[in-house]
Amino acid sequence: MTTARIRDFLRTRRPEGPCLVVDLDVVRNNYTAFRHALPDSAIYYAVKANPEPEILKLLASLGSNFDCASVAEIQMALAAGATAERISFGNTIKKERDIARAFELGVGLFAVDSHEEVEKVARAAPGARVFCRVLTDGEGAEWPLSRKFGCVPQMAVDVLVYAHQLGLESYGVSFHVGSQMTKVDAWDSALADAKRVFAQLAKQGIFLQMVNMGGGFPTRYLRDIPSAEEYGKAIFASLRKHFGNNLPKTIIEPGRGMVGNAGVIKAEVVLVSKKSDNDEHRWVFLDIGKFGGLAETMDEAIRYPIRTERDGDDMEPCVIAGPTCDSADVLYEKNMYPLPITLTVGDEVLIEGTGAYTTTYSAVAFNGFDPLKAYVI
Amino acid sequence: MTTARIRDFLRTRRPEGPCLVVDLDVVRNNYTAFRHALPDSAIYYAVKANPEPEILKLLASLGSNFDCASVAEIQMALAAGATAERISFGNTIKKERDIARAFELGVGLFAVDSHEEVEKVARAAPGARVFCRVLTDGEGAEWPLSRKFGCVPQMAVDVLVYAHQLGLESYGVSFHVGSQMTKVDAWDSALADAKRVFAQLAKQGIFLQMVNMGGGFPTRYLRDIPSAEEYGKAIFASLRKHFGNNLPKTIIEPGRGMVGNAGVIKAEVVLVSKKSDNDEHRWVFLDIGKFGGLAETMDEAIRYPIRTERDGDDMEPCVIAGPTCDSADVLYEKNMYPLPITLTVGDEVLIEGTGAYTTTYSAVAFNGFDPLKAYVI
Repeated sequence: MTTARIRDFLRTRRPEGPCLVVDLDVVRNNYTAFRHALPDSAIYYAVKANPEPEILKLLASLGSNFDCASVAEIQMALAAGATAERISFGNTIKKERDIARAFELGVGLFAVDSHEEVEKVARAAPGARVFCRVLTDGEGAEWPLSRKFGCVPQMAVDVLVYAHQLGLESYGVSFHVGSQMTKVDAWDSALADAKRVFAQLAKQGIFLQMVNMGGGFPTRYLRDIPSAEEYGKAIFASLRKHFGNNLPKTIIEPGRGMVGNAGVIKAEVVLVSKKSDNDEHRWVFLDIGKFGGLAETMDEAIRYPIRTERDGDDMEPCVIAGPTCDSADVLYEKNMYPLPITLTVGDEVLIEGTGAYTTTYSAVAFNGFDPLKAYVI
Repeated sequence: MTTARIRDFLRTRRPEGPCLVVDLDVVRNNYTAFRHALPDSAIYYAVKANPEPEILKLLASLGSNFDCASVAEIQMALAAGATAERISFGNTIKKERDIARAFELGVGLFAVDSHEEVEKVARAAPGARVFCRVLTDGEGAEWPLSRKFGCVPQMAVDVLVYAHQLGLESYGVSFHVGSQMTKVDAWDSALADAKRVFAQLAKQGIFLQMVNMGGGFPTRYLRDIPSAEEYGKAIFASLRKHFGNNLPKTIIEPGRGMVGNAGVIKAEVVLVSKKSDNDEHRWVFLDIGKFGGLAETMDEAIRYPIRTERDGDDMEPCVIAGPTCDSADVLYEKNMYPLPITLTVGDEVLIEGTGAYTTTYSAVAFNGFDPLKAYVI
């Protein structure tokens, strides 16, 4: 996954310290693959996955819309050239003053999952479109979503009726099958729920128009994943199955699936050691860890491919840890990671599939270490 | 724990957004308490706990030394008025160029826990003092340390002999009983290990001088903790027990114990909702979460006291979560947190005991949210 362009950049620029390098050609290819896989769905890039300005500019120029989690992200999408009608304020937890600010900026589409949030939107963005997030089980995702977002389908009906009563446009429902979802049929039961919400509201004279099918599209880490085309086929089949010929407008919100495989982190081996003479396993310490951008290794959830210049040599499992004085800053320990026996202090390692959810997770200055730098090429 | 000075600051300044307020009077009192509890130990403040310049300046003026995890932290300690001989480079995982830079800056005391690290120090800081970190079990700590740092005592002997052979001054041993350690006798078995390392090296003509007893001193969260005086008595008794009348120089490295109770985070309730009509528990969403500075709620390890203006009202357990679109951004769910039933959107909450390990853990810009601001008063 380290492209020739990334290899060239690292070889010629030799950036100091750990850094992420993102190849825009890969982002463009991913956008095109989603476009072809789900030609009737609007793509709303999940800005939180990686908000680097060059990425947002490229996607804006390709016609992407943007799913934003905060006013700051909305401002970034606007600065990248997106118009306000191409932006969704997709966070269900918003301060009323942030809703008002987004509305002032022209944003007219808001996520809700509770009566209280509907009231805030009705006050701060009168007449705006809202979609209600429905809870799904998220089974099958490597980075599972909790119950944090959404409400049960029956409550979603009540929430959307309430929005209608308060003068908002009850526009649709959303769900999220869970990040890094590797089952192509995961969208099916959520679409069945969505259809039921549509039907119940129609009985009350409220006609929803849109299903926001969220993100969840995976990046290839160590295991193969289905292609965008396979997801597209399965999702379209479920839409037909549940909505028949009366298909709603649909939105997808790829984040990881759009940029994950476009980025590679260059890091350095700081120390290779053992804890005792008869320790069976080496500890390999890198200059990046959980607090420097690799937060998704929490509970060893995401297992990134790691490449070294010694990959032809014999491998042995080892513990991999970060450079901080924090004992929680260990990447892989329960499930040790095979690395070349010859790996030594000063060696460069490439951590692949790190284009999403790395730079922005990085701590401000934990232990005095700089946050992860990014280069977009 | 919210002092009158902090209350006054919040009332008069009304800072926008979540923020940490640190009361320097509390830091001064903590320093004095450690000074009295362990009058013969040198205090090395663990800068990583909170590196705000005003805190470092105060501690430098009081005569504190500094335990630094990186060159950036060393530079901050120097900028605060500490001289280089009052600084320890306490991270066992250092790039050789960072050791060289620290040595150039005048630092002459380095932590090691492996032969490889000794070689780096010998090359980059010839003749410097080193202490070897010994693995302890960390039993009893709320924020347990893993095996990440240190080596077994027998290997520490070899590491210190090797350091001597390479021309370094083998100066002592260190250990860390685990952060937020609430058992005052936790230092005893580690001191026994330290004494054995002293004795084995003495047989080889190498006479260690110093025991770095690390940090681990707790902050009072919801449960009472022993006083600094109680820790001092227990530790001194263990020193006498193991070293007799030939007491070594000792160092302590309080971080959490120095600043934890000096800080309070002011946050705001963004949403209170349920997931279904018959949901038994409310979800309370704050404008700060795991990625905005409360990383130590990971696995619900640290349970902060939370105060509201409605604390006299009836309480019910609820889930507390942060404001980001990340499903992992939930603070307390497995072990729900009692908050007033009347708590509502817009209410201010005070999260106490947050002076340590908050601002620097904060993510750069996750979901576009600003990192945690700090005010030191």
